[in-house]
Formats: sequence, C-alpha cells, structure tokens
Amino acid sequence: MNAAPSGPLTRWRLSLPVLAWARGYQRDTLMSDGVAALIVTVMLIPQSLAYAMLAGLPPEVGLYASVAPLLLYAVLGSSRVLAVGPVAVVSLMTAAAIGEHAVAGSQAYWTVAITLAFLSGAMLLLMGVLRLGFLANFLSHPVISGFITASGLLIAASQLKTLLGVKAEGHNFVELFRSLLAQLPHVHALTALVGLASLAFLFWVRSGLKPLLVRAGLPARAADLLAKTGPIAAIGVTALLTWALQWQQQGVKIVGTVPQGLPPFTLPLWDLSLWQSLLVPALLISVVGFVESVSVGQTLAAKRRQRIDPDQELVALGASNLGAAFTGGFPVTGGFARSVVNFDAGAQTPAAGVFTAGGILLASLFLTPALFYLPQATLAATIVVAVLSLVDFSIFRKTWTVSKPDFMAVLATLLTTLGVGVEAGLVVGVGVSLALHLFRTSRPHMAEVGLVPGTQHFRNVERHAVLTTPDVLGLRVDESLYFANSRALEDRVNSAVATHPGLKHVVLQCSAINDIDASALESLEAIDRRLHDAGICLHLSEVKGPVMDRLKRTHFLQTLSGKVFLSHYQAVHELAPGVG
Amino acid sequence: MNAAPSGPLTRWRLSLPVLAWARGYQRDTLMSDGVAALIVTVMLIPQSLAYAMLAGLPPEVGLYASVAPLLLYAVLGSSRVLAVGPVAVVSLMTAAAIGEHAVAGSQAYWTVAITLAFLSGAMLLLMGVLRLGFLANFLSHPVISGFITASGLLIAASQLKTLLGVKAEGHNFVELFRSLLAQLPHVHALTALVGLASLAFLFWVRSGLKPLLVRAGLPARAADLLAKTGPIAAIGVTALLTWALQWQQQGVKIVGTVPQGLPPFTLPLWDLSLWQSLLVPALLISVVGFVESVSVGQTLAAKRRQRIDPDQELVALGASNLGAAFTGGFPVTGGFARSVVNFDAGAQTPAAGVFTAGGILLASLFLTPALFYLPQATLAATIVVAVLSLVDFSIFRKTWTVSKPDFMAVLATLLTTLGVGVEAGLVVGVGVSLALHLFRTSRPHMAEVGLVPGTQHFRNVERHAVLTTPDVLGLRVDESLYFANSRALEDRVNSAVATHPGLKHVVLQCSAINDIDASALESLEAIDRRLHDAGICLHLSEVKGPVMDRLKRTHFLQTLSGKVFLSHYQAVHELAPGVG
Repeated sequence: MNAAPSGPLTRWRLSLPVLAWARGYQRDTLMSDGVAALIVTVMLIPQSLAYAMLAGLPPEVGLYASVAPLLLYAVLGSSRVLAVGPVAVVSLMTAAAIGEHAVAGSQAYWTVAITLAFLSGAMLLLMGVLRLGFLANFLSHPVISGFITASGLLIAASQLKTLLGVKAEGHNFVELFRSLLAQLPHVHALTALVGLASLAFLFWVRSGLKPLLVRAGLPARAADLLAKTGPIAAIGVTALLTWALQWQQQGVKIVGTVPQGLPPFTLPLWDLSLWQSLLVPALLISVVGFVESVSVGQTLAAKRRQRIDPDQELVALGASNLGAAFTGGFPVTGGFARSVVNFDAGAQTPAAGVFTAGGILLASLFLTPALFYLPQATLAATIVVAVLSLVDFSIFRKTWTVSKPDFMAVLATLLTTLGVGVEAGLVVGVGVSLALHLFRTSRPHMAEVGLVPGTQHFRNVERHAVLTTPDVLGLRVDESLYFANSRALEDRVNSAVATHPGLKHVVLQCSAINDIDASALESLEAIDRRLHDAGICLHLSEVKGPVMDRLKRTHFLQTLSGKVFLSHYQAVHELAPGVG
Repeated sequence: MNAAPSGPLTRWRLSLPVLAWARGYQRDTLMSDGVAALIVTVMLIPQSLAYAMLAGLPPEVGLYASVAPLLLYAVLGSSRVLAVGPVAVVSLMTAAAIGEHAVAGSQAYWTVAITLAFLSGAMLLLMGVLRLGFLANFLSHPVISGFITASGLLIAASQLKTLLGVKAEGHNFVELFRSLLAQLPHVHALTALVGLASLAFLFWVRSGLKPLLVRAGLPARAADLLAKTGPIAAIGVTALLTWALQWQQQGVKIVGTVPQGLPPFTLPLWDLSLWQSLLVPALLISVVGFVESVSVGQTLAAKRRQRIDPDQELVALGASNLGAAFTGGFPVTGGFARSVVNFDAGAQTPAAGVFTAGGILLASLFLTPALFYLPQATLAATIVVAVLSLVDFSIFRKTWTVSKPDFMAVLATLLTTLGVGVEAGLVVGVGVSLALHLFRTSRPHMAEVGLVPGTQHFRNVERHAVLTTPDVLGLRVDESLYFANSRALEDRVNSAVATHPGLKHVVLQCSAINDIDASALESLEAIDRRLHDAGICLHLSEVKGPVMDRLKRTHFLQTLSGKVFLSHYQAVHELAPGVG
C-alpha cells in the first residue's frame, strides 16, 4: 500500500507492494488465497477463451494473457484482490483497433494484438511514472456507463452470429443488426440449438441455481460461488456431447486444435507507422481499462478499509500489459466479475493471483486437447451472458433527474458507439461532456443580494424578502472566475449599472470564488475602471485566502476604487449605515 | 440600447437600436456628430488604404469596406460610438486565409476576400440570432493579448519589405525575418528614405507633436485630435513630392491608378468546397473581430454609463460584414483607435458613423486620382506605426505574477502565432488555456478542517491551531464537483480513512461547492457505500441551495448513512460534543 500523495509533481519512485504482503505471509492466508485462486481459475478459463475469440484471436491467446499479467500484477499492484486478464470491453476495443490492420485469425492479426498490448502497457507505465492517472478522470461516470452499455450491446450482437451459426458482418450495431436479420433464414439449426441451450442454461445458473442450492442447504456464499462455475459446466457438457455425437461433422463449428504448451516468448512489431495508427486506440484501451480496473479495485479495497493508489495501479497495469505483449497475449485489465469472485472467495493477498496464474498455466499445458470439441456457440453464449450484465439503461433515468448535460453526454456516447464505433463513441463522449461542462461554468449563477432583516446574512433579492438600498448593489458570484466566465461578470455589472441610476457602490460578495485567473483579474480591473468613470466605487467582500494571495501579487488592490471587506455585512454596514 | 438578458434560450427578436437614437435627433447632436465624423474620416482614409494593402487587396477595396459596413452598424449596433471598418489584425488574418487560395492582387484573390467577408458576416449574424456570443469568452484575455502582440510583430515584419523596397516572403515571423535579412543588401535607397522618413515623422507626431501644440496654446484635446491627422499629412506630403520629383521613375513603388466611383455591387462565390476550406479562418476572424470590437465598445459605453449588448453586436457586425461582401469590401470590425477618436471628438450617436461613411464615399468618388503618386512605402509606414502600439509584452510579466497557467497559454499563443501562423496560434492558445483550466479544476484544493477555539469557525488543520477529534474528520472541498475532480475526492477520502484508524464520521463541508454533476453524485454514493462498509458515517454540511435541490431529486439523501447539517459547527457539535 502506498499512501504517498499522488500529485503529478511528486517524484516517482519504484514501489513494490509485493514487499508489504509477502514478508509476513501466513499459512492460513495461503489456504484462503488458494481456495479463491481455484474458483477464479475455473471461472477464468472459459472467459479467457471466449474473450480471445471476441477479440478475433485464437483461444489459447486468452490463456496466455492470463498468466504473466497476473504474476506481474501480484508484484506491482496496490489492490489485494484485483484479478487481471482479458475482459469483454477491452477485447471488443482490441478487435475494433486491429480489424483495420489485419484479417481476424491470421498470424499478422495476432502480432498486431501483441503490439497493441505493448503500446498500451508502455502508455500505462509512462502515465504511472509521470503520475498522469488523473487524465482518466476526464472520462466521466455517465460517459463510461453509456460506453459500457453500448459495448455490451455491440458484443452481444457480434456473438449472435456465432450463436446461430450464420455469417454476419458490420462495423457498428446498425450494420451488424441488419446483416443478422438478413441472415436469419440461414440459421444452422444444430448450432443454434447448442448456442441457445447454453444461453438458457447460463441464464438459469445466474438466476435460478443459487436459490435452489440455498434451499438444498448450502450456505448463501458457497451457493453464489458454485453458481459462478456454470460456464465451465456448459463447456464441459457441450464439448462432451459434440465429441460423443460428432456434431462437428454436421456443421457445428468447434474450437479445434489448441496448441499445448507454455505461453510463447513474443515481440511486438517495431513499425513506427503501425504504432502511429495504433496510438489513439491504445490510449483509449489504456484509459478505459484503467478506469474499469481502478473503480473495481477501490470498491473492494474500501470494504476492508484498505486503499489503492491509482498511479501505482497504472504502473502495475502497464507492466501487466507489457507482460502480455512478451508472452503472446493481448490487452488485459482488472475484471469486475472475477475480482468480486476473488474477494468473495476469501482472497487475502495477491498471492491468489499467483496461484490463479499457475492454474491457467496448467490448463494451457494439459487442458487444451480437451477443448478440441468445444462448440464455438457455447463460448459465444458465455460471452452474451457475461456482457448483458453490463447493459444498464438506468443511467439515462438517473442523469435525466440529476443533470441534463450528463444525460446528453450519455446519449451522445451511446448513440455514437452503437452507430459509428467504440473509439468514436469514447471521443465524442469526452468531447461532449467537456464542452457542456465548460458551457455551464461559462454562465455562472450571479445573484443580487440583500440583507435578511434582523440577521447578518445576505440572500438573493429575487427569492427572499430582503433589505436593499439604491446606493449600494451587492452581487454574489457563484463560481470561480476564469476566462470563460469573466466577461459574463462584466456584462452583469454593466447591466446592473445601467438599470440602477442612483448607484454609488458595487460590492462583489466573493465567498464562492475559489480561484481567479489573469482574465478574470483583467475583467475586475476593467469593471473597476468603468465603474470609476461612471462615479461608482467597486468593493469586494469575503475574499478567500488563495484568491486574496493572488490579488496581493498584483496592483489590483492599489488601484481598486473601493475596499476589501472581511464580511459582506461589514461592507453594507459601512457603505449604507441605514441598512446595516 | 437593448437591456434584455442575453441567455442563449431567450427568443431572439429583431432589434433596431437606430430607433432609440434617431427619433429624438437634435441639432446640437448633429454638430458634435459631424465634427467627430470629419476627424474620423480623415483618419480612416489612410487606414483603409493601408489595411487593404496589408490584406493583399487593391487600396480602393479599403474604401469600399468603409461605407456600407458603417451604415449598417449605425442602424443595428448597440454602441453609440464604435467605428467599424478594416482593422490591422483582421486584415492580417484575411491575408493568411486567402493566401492559400489565390495570388495577392489578382481578381480571384479579391473574390475570395469578398466570400470570406460573406461567410464571416453570416457566422456573426447566426451567432447573434442564436445568442452564442458567449463562445467568444473561450478566447481568454491573455490568449488575445499574446495573439495581438504576435500579430503586431508579424504585420510590422511584413511591412518592412515595402518600407525598404525589397522583396521578402514568408508564412511566419521566422521565415519573414530571415528573408528580410537576406534582402538587406538590395534595399532601394530612395524607397527606404521615403519609408523611414514617414516612419520617423509618424512616430514624432505620436509622441512629440501633441506637447508642442499644447505649448502653442491649443487645448489638450484638440491637440490630441490634430495629432491623429498625422498619417494624412504624411500621405499628402510624400504623394506631392513623388509627383513633383517623379520618384516613380527612379523605382519608388506608387499606388497607381485607383478606380474612381461608388463601391461596386459584388457577390460572394457560391462554391461549397471553397466555403468549407474558409470555414475555420472565417470563424477565427469572426471571433477575434467580435472580441476586439466588444471590448472597445464596452469600455467606451461605460464611460457614459451606457451599455452594449454583445448579442446585438454580433448581429450588427454580421450585417456589416455582409454589407462589405456585397459592396466589394473585405472583413471588417470595430477598430480601437478610430472608436476612441470618435468618442473623444464628441460623437453622440451612430449618426457620426453615417457621416463618416458619407465622407469615405466622397473620397472614393473624388479623391482617388490624388492617390496615384502616393508611395506604397508611406502606407507601410502608417501600418507599422499603428501596429507597433499593439505590441505589448507586459502581459508576460503580469500573467507570470498572477497565474502560471495563463503565462503558459500566452507563451504558447505567441510562439505558435509567430512560428506557424495566425490560425494555428489562436487554436493552440484556446486549446492550451482550456486544457490548463481543466487540469486545475481536476485537482481541487481540499483541506482537513478543525474548530478555531472559542469560535464557530473551521480552518485548515495544516495552517491553524485548531481542535479536532479522532472520531470525526471534517473535510472542506474548495471547488464545484464534476466528473474531472470527483475521483480526486474519492482518493482523498479513501486515504483519510486509511490514515485515521479510529474514524467514525466524515463530514464534508460543502460551502464552496457551487454545482454537482452525475459523476460527482456517483462518487459521493461510492464514498458513502465504502465508508459504510468500513463502519463510518458520511455527513454533509453547509450544502448550497442549488446543490441541495439536485440531491433531493435523487435517492442520495435517503441512502446517505449520515445527515445533512446546516452548518459545520452544528455537525461537529452533534457528532463530537466534546469538541464543539
């Protein structure tokens, strides 16, 4: 655990969280970590295969991506329970990024995936060392939610073709959906049967199995964990059936030969023009992966009063992706479902991740022949079930009530992701949310204030029955002043002066001004000058410390026609004794 | 004058400020407007010629651009004294924009200039009707200052070649300067003599003539106004000398034949691909012109306790540019120097603009033959003197003391404008200032607060000797919460929890939170959930009205583990009675 402040100017030093937990490693911790690792391994095997397929890669690549990354995360990660590996959204983004450069399934495609993992890892590592984790904050919650929901829909749609045994293509949801509809008459009946049966089984495992197990006397947590092994059961049963009945001869597509062995040593392509075109996708994959991973990590850490260090997470995820790149993998990040399972199964330390990596390694050494007869439709079904839990439209209702700009940002993200693609969706989402935020702060709330009778408090004259005087105008500014809104202040004061003929003093109540920049200072000077030309004094009240420090460094306070008052009440009391 | 609120959602209606002043027009107003118009006309003739030349256009185009725009502004403008016409920076931007499409001096070049005025006019009008004037606010004062200083340097450098009678070219300051140095041996002696003598004379008029006139007994204001006629004297004298001594035969470049007559009726090119490539330049010209014009207009209006309506200004400037487009002109805006002269000379109403337009019209009908012998070097000298007053490096010192991000934005704008060009300079300036602003707000100031003994006030524990208790953590957030900084709050609370083992309550003091969005709300919910998991209650204090309204529209307050207190003191008093 690293409790250093995470400012970008803090000097970075190599932090090895492994030292914190490995030193005092105990036998009972070993037990709970081992049990958790076993459950996560069983869950991770089908996921690894399925997400590799989703990314357009051979299934063994999914296994390779679940060994080295886990080991590296265990050494460098600041979360005790995060489980890294291939995840749905990042796999979808990987497919979108590589699709432009190579044909899915080819050797070239795999090499580009390795290069993408390398670039993404290098970026994450660099962002961690430079402490640029805050950059991820510009992906707002609503944009992420809209993006993940849209990605879930896109992934589900892309798997339907495998599930139904048809050929369908499309770069976005609309194309994909249209292509699927056109292919409906050509559905391969047996494939569809396997696919839909797996789907139904997996949905039932999610919703119906746990209550059944509980009724059968199992403790709730054990029932929950057992239910997570549903996918492995589906895989085992359908592979066995296919082997027994030789369904592949009737046209059911199977996984086929999966090479047995250790993850290979691989190198990314050293091709600058490829790097250049992968730069934006790699950045987006890094940021999305990081945001997903950190939010899972934070949620789980807080449950045990631990904390994670976002910049250290960048380093750990960066190393994990570099590890994936050099061992034949593809971009990875911390997964939500598997981390929760790891946590619930009682994992205490990242040693659970080391054991999981060992389990996956064993699988890739010995289990792969057993995957020969596994129908692709079963894998597609596990993906559909996993991603449909990502789809959540409640964000629309939520943002509609809380904030219309957020609603518009989600809508823009969702529609662009579905209609154009994942990268465009993210870029538009961030752009729209920033633009709307800037728009909002560029029109700050300002209120003319008056004294609440019998108190020293001032309130908006339009909302409350308050005392005012024609000589003195009190104006409260409810926003930090910066270039985008300083002219709004000028306009407001100009219009107030034009509508208050007898005015002698303007007092700006600055209690809500947290910061002020050079433009705002220029505007204040211009306001003061113009008021002065019109025979009116400008005063300030309740100026915050940091803002006052800044004003003191300039000539503003010397040239100011009026005074700076500690409280607005003092100002009014002195300028209009009749009121105060 | 239009005192309507200028929100973007206010319905636009045609506003004719002319009705306000024309109805009660008086004889003595006529006199003062007439005198002002005469002085502005004398000043505007050389400026119009010179700025047309700067824009790469024939001199008469400058006169054309100073008739219709003035008339239209008089009808629609909300400033009483603003004088529109060709100005230096906009002319430079015009030259930069057209240079890519046609050869300076050609008929095609002029047509593109007309099209640019048309597009810029249409944009301004549209922005006015849609009340989008606030968009200009994203050009911060420092960026504008850096841009105008760089433009002044660029313009001065571009005029040196005409002043010295050499050929020099370059798309930016560096190229231009290098080319000029290489050409120094080829200076045309007589041209340089005329140019440098005019330059010296004009500088002397600026600084030496006025005191002399005052000593000679003239009132200060009259001396000031008389000094403004310096350029016309320089033009008259050098033209006369050239005619008398036939300098053009010795290689001094003269203006030559300027067609006599009314401004022609012209049409923009209806060429969509040209429009597309002129879109960004036209937008930048519109915004820069608008910002310059509005700041002049506001400064002058305030001196007489009037005000101008920025959205109405957009409409008026839009109409002026459309007027320029249909009468053979080029992009125009309100000029600083000429508006100040107009104001100082006593102009009371926009009728002064109408009279000025009449004066320029007479000049284009009768005066143009007299311009035949005018040396181009003299015009170049008037430009150099005019633009060097734009160059102001004090913005560097000023922003350095007030705000380093502003300093970086100015520096980026200046260097990019000089090194790359005007359009790149503006775009980079806006980009850098927005990025730095977002960066700053993404890392809000947060302080752990404690009670100042004997009061009800809370202050930063790191700066003051205050009372705290291990059970209750008070945290003041000095920024509105939005997506870019909400995770910073999560980090801060997480780290506080990890470092305060006995903690039972966290109270967020929200007095400086002016706004909250859906991401921030999610973060608050996540914080509450995590604190709850760790057995800690989250409370809020001093929540502002608008923020409270927003919280009430969600389930947040129902699920919140703690309470919302009116004051932070009440919170601490209740949660830790020993301290309060």
